[in-house]
Amino acid sequence: MFKKTDKGFISKYQPVIYTTDAVIFTLPPPEIASEPVVIVYRRADEKEPYFDRWALPGGMVRTNDDANDRAACERVIREKLGFPPSYLEQLQTFSGAGRDPRGWSSSVVYFTLLPWKELANWWASKPNAQLLPLSAIRKSMVSLAFDHDEILRVAIERIQAKAHYSTLPCMLLPERFTVAQMHGMYEALQGRPINMAAFRRKVEKLDFLTKVSGVFEGGAQRPAQVYRMKHREPALFDRGL
Amino acid sequence: MFKKTDKGFISKYQPVIYTTDAVIFTLPPPEIASEPVVIVYRRADEKEPYFDRWALPGGMVRTNDDANDRAACERVIREKLGFPPSYLEQLQTFSGAGRDPRGWSSSVVYFTLLPWKELANWWASKPNAQLLPLSAIRKSMVSLAFDHDEILRVAIERIQAKAHYSTLPCMLLPERFTVAQMHGMYEALQGRPINMAAFRRKVEKLDFLTKVSGVFEGGAQRPAQVYRMKHREPALFDRGL
Repeated sequence: MFKKTDKGFISKYQPVIYTTDAVIFTLPPPEIASEPVVIVYRRADEKEPYFDRWALPGGMVRTNDDANDRAACERVIREKLGFPPSYLEQLQTFSGAGRDPRGWSSSVVYFTLLPWKELANWWASKPNAQLLPLSAIRKSMVSLAFDHDEILRVAIERIQAKAHYSTLPCMLLPERFTVAQMHGMYEALQGRPINMAAFRRKVEKLDFLTKVSGVFEGGAQRPAQVYRMKHREPALFDRGL
Repeated sequence: MFKKTDKGFISKYQPVIYTTDAVIFTLPPPEIASEPVVIVYRRADEKEPYFDRWALPGGMVRTNDDANDRAACERVIREKLGFPPSYLEQLQTFSGAGRDPRGWSSSVVYFTLLPWKELANWWASKPNAQLLPLSAIRKSMVSLAFDHDEILRVAIERIQAKAHYSTLPCMLLPERFTVAQMHGMYEALQGRPINMAAFRRKVEKLDFLTKVSGVFEGGAQRPAQVYRMKHREPALFDRGL
């Protein structure tokens, strides 16, 4: 099955183009976008195939340097954004003969959720990037390189499921937030209205928020309590939202 | 980054040993095992590395024949068991420089749940296989080739999570079963006792079973209703079990 060469063992089959891609979710401030977005880059000069098309940030796994595919994805994100992601979860591997004109390819895809605070400097540097609103992706209004539309579909499905039973989406919020802000983001991620009273009850029952004492937001007549999360790690709701 | 050769485009990095492995869960009859098991094979003659060690069924992805990694895994299962799996879900990709002594390798791992009925002929043919009980895996009583212990740990974590909120585990049951049988299997998959009265309530609420009229099991004094699933596709409990 294998023969040994100076480049290591080589399979008798055509080698796999082995890559990684990242789905980066974030929630920009209202003046930039009114809902959660995904970051895509324009494929730069001489980057064939799909030159000039929008694509998820990604790249070859460097088997000479990268310890594994997670490390490769962290490197790709660090190269693009300037810092490694604090959270990274494997989404799925997409592979096959048809997804890259160069040959049989595989991409191990990870996703992360980053608060805008960490991305503000990157965005201010005017990167060759675009922020795709979730609603536009859901309505198939985007057309990315490779099978990245399909990857986004699976990523949104995953985040939607996680928004149903975990506090993972709170990673997108600023450090201090109101329950109304949190509720709005859950609605955006799930792509459907969520009853506010029931939402508030479930959030209270899970007991993962701490009141930030003395801080209220909103008009003087209806001040809203501000909270922060007790832990960074996501917690699970006993019952779906 | 790539150069074109007669074998297609070759990366300047060492090629990845690109494989797939399958975690096959099943529930044998009581005379064979008293709990759900995973199928492992002994690595046959000349199959280095890890010759003679137990391993998950797997193999190279054949980029010349396999359309994608799912098709490769289906082929591997078909070759081992004689039929393709009716259900196959991607578990995770495991990769890196250290997991295979031949070089940087990647395995896209899938899992399936098969009722024993489909496996009875295969088992009767005395394959070079072993059935690992979940409790033995949980107690780290097994030591498989490559990183397959780690793969099993992740697979059991996944099935445990799915057993918490979905009817997926029912795929392991025979076509007709009692709620007590179902309850016992959920306990085995989750590795913890589950309150029977609450379990029965949640099962009834989900309304995914049909009574098989006239069929009762057990002693004459305490007959138990026998059911079958309304649909093959797994359903989700609104609330964790």
